[in-house]
Amino acid sequence: MIKMNLQFSDGLKNMKPSEIRELLKYASKKDFISFSGGMPNPLTFPMDEIRQIIDEVMRDYGSLALQYGNTGGLNELREEISKMVLETEGIKTTMEGTIVTSGSQQGLYELAKVMLNPGDTVITEEPTYVGAISAFDANKAEMHSIKIDDEGMDTHAAEEEIKRLISAGRKPKFIYLIPTFQNPTGITMSLERRKHITEISSRYSIPIVEDNPYGELRYSGQKIPSLKSLDHEDSVIYMGTFSKVMCPGFRLGYTIAPVDYVNRANLLKQALDLSSSTFSQYVAWLYLKKGIMKTMIPKAVSLYRKKRDAMFKALEESFPEGSKWSRPDGGMFIWATLDRRINTSDLLKESVEAGVAYVSGNSFSPSRSQGSSMRLNFTFAEEKKIFEGMERLGNLVEKKLSILESP
Amino acid sequence: MIKMNLQFSDGLKNMKPSEIRELLKYASKKDFISFSGGMPNPLTFPMDEIRQIIDEVMRDYGSLALQYGNTGGLNELREEISKMVLETEGIKTTMEGTIVTSGSQQGLYELAKVMLNPGDTVITEEPTYVGAISAFDANKAEMHSIKIDDEGMDTHAAEEEIKRLISAGRKPKFIYLIPTFQNPTGITMSLERRKHITEISSRYSIPIVEDNPYGELRYSGQKIPSLKSLDHEDSVIYMGTFSKVMCPGFRLGYTIAPVDYVNRANLLKQALDLSSSTFSQYVAWLYLKKGIMKTMIPKAVSLYRKKRDAMFKALEESFPEGSKWSRPDGGMFIWATLDRRINTSDLLKESVEAGVAYVSGNSFSPSRSQGSSMRLNFTFAEEKKIFEGMERLGNLVEKKLSILESP
Repeated sequence: MIKMNLQFSDGLKNMKPSEIRELLKYASKKDFISFSGGMPNPLTFPMDEIRQIIDEVMRDYGSLALQYGNTGGLNELREEISKMVLETEGIKTTMEGTIVTSGSQQGLYELAKVMLNPGDTVITEEPTYVGAISAFDANKAEMHSIKIDDEGMDTHAAEEEIKRLISAGRKPKFIYLIPTFQNPTGITMSLERRKHITEISSRYSIPIVEDNPYGELRYSGQKIPSLKSLDHEDSVIYMGTFSKVMCPGFRLGYTIAPVDYVNRANLLKQALDLSSSTFSQYVAWLYLKKGIMKTMIPKAVSLYRKKRDAMFKALEESFPEGSKWSRPDGGMFIWATLDRRINTSDLLKESVEAGVAYVSGNSFSPSRSQGSSMRLNFTFAEEKKIFEGMERLGNLVEKKLSILESP
Repeated sequence: MIKMNLQFSDGLKNMKPSEIRELLKYASKKDFISFSGGMPNPLTFPMDEIRQIIDEVMRDYGSLALQYGNTGGLNELREEISKMVLETEGIKTTMEGTIVTSGSQQGLYELAKVMLNPGDTVITEEPTYVGAISAFDANKAEMHSIKIDDEGMDTHAAEEEIKRLISAGRKPKFIYLIPTFQNPTGITMSLERRKHITEISSRYSIPIVEDNPYGELRYSGQKIPSLKSLDHEDSVIYMGTFSKVMCPGFRLGYTIAPVDYVNRANLLKQALDLSSSTFSQYVAWLYLKKGIMKTMIPKAVSLYRKKRDAMFKALEESFPEGSKWSRPDGGMFIWATLDRRINTSDLLKESVEAGVAYVSGNSFSPSRSQGSSMRLNFTFAEEKKIFEGMERLGNLVEKKLSILESP
């Protein structure tokens, strides 16, 4: 057969295949331990409650739930989401300001497409969420990433970069932040920094995008107000997800934004997928309405706290001197940084062969400056496996170091 | 409150809000009759079977079905899809050549983004599917639309246009066709034309995109081979959906394509939504595996045949002389064209006030040349309502004509 050569666009040329996806083929191997995905633990899925809700959806809303739905989302669900974010994050919004997305990943894609012309600049954290990098890359954004420390993004450095970009005629279109239990580092932005970035946003008239998938998963420390609740100019676009407080399999997220933005995002969504699954939305609506989320979260928090503490302990025990790691109060990830002579992308193949996986630092790095770091997920593996996997990984790093140090 | 002005991209500037969406607010009015949506009739949803399948999914695959899944789709489902299309359309493919999408709308968006640079040209039918226009507009394509007659696209005119575009250095990136029971016209492309367009595709090395949402919904006439089954150069990208042969609420479609295309589409899907609903995919997998589709389709066909015939009769009875309409052998739509002095976009407001809706012709027209036509859906309304709605519409058109003809 003579095959036709397809001529593809160059629209995807900045995008890279995900390491994680490559690794999935190993993940089914017996005894393989993965710290790579951002997967919630299935023990947290409220199976019985979801089963009951599904029965109710099929019984009482069947022909609606299986039909096409509104592009912007099921009104009843949007209403419940707006109540929920008021309660959990002090966010005042309405149904009209709330849109349902097919996972918060779609929210990020819509953000990029609604806000960015090719070549536009955006400010992100360094490192930042790999899915945000994908969405921004797919729309040819130029990311300017600002280092984070234990208190989150260095807002003074952010302001300097913003001033520099403005004077070069390249004013950033938005500042993208995961201020609470950040992905990949687990770090939470301090209140002082939150206030500062809000001032900067206002001063230079640059909207903030607050991505908050993990906010409810706090294992220690005090809650800090969301950026959106500090927003007095309707200039924060807020994103959340059901993946971490219900389950990921229904693919539902939401965006809370100014109405102009909502209209444009929905216009785009007509082209993206017409609407998110109507069935999923009915399930999520009853899930919120019946208060199941409120009973599920404490269980997840208690399970994940133990796992986080196990990983802290395992890191202490197994990782060689010269390694350091973040001490997150919540979320799903610990960020470990090794001796700077070790490249975690190179190490990954050996690590996978040794039966343990992580995501290498540069996957999260717009500036490709996180070569010695790795993201470790602690929510999925069993406690015993956490110790076992960290021991394998620690041994591998020690071996690497001893080769480097041998004369 | 001083509100910040958001600076949006101009990426969406070609896109127009959907008339249909605007009309939804009226659709809930008592006695309102809508011929506008492409909605399957909920009587065709196999509720009991879907309920049983859902029970099985929750019981046997719960923790997998509620978790994140592969970007390209659940392997078991991809396998079943490849078996199904062999059986229904004579399409030889493999799991590797099959990807799951969030409705076939996402397949169209992926197509545009994977294949097109801004300003690239594509060949479409005139008129064509509004969702394809949205997806191509969102990626700044230039559509060159070729008139269709009772045998589908005029392939000689298509070849002339392709030659013209090639000599202008603007070779089309693909030819987009809905060859069977086309949306919006209901027309089916003849075998002769199918062979001709396949030759043209080969001669000029331009891939064909075959969108086939309605292929299984045939009420009269003989099945005609799919373009993909006539493809000997792996140059047809084929799209299908579960929305018309199961239900739309799970938002699942699929694309069958060369592996190079599949890889790029999945890379993009990482940015679009990570994966389609895992839960939905488990349901669709068992739906195919248990052969429920094969029992559902004859029921839908028999219901829709009656409704189509009712609309044919209602058109004869109610539409004034000078109107004409298509005589589809299947699908969901009839395309009616009125006296050319009547503009169906203008008429729509009055029509909605009179309690009946359609979609105006120019919504489907890249060249905006379908001003006197309308798309009428016959699958959703009850038979009695079809007669009632067509009478309202016919009266309105008659009134318009008599005003135009009054001295």
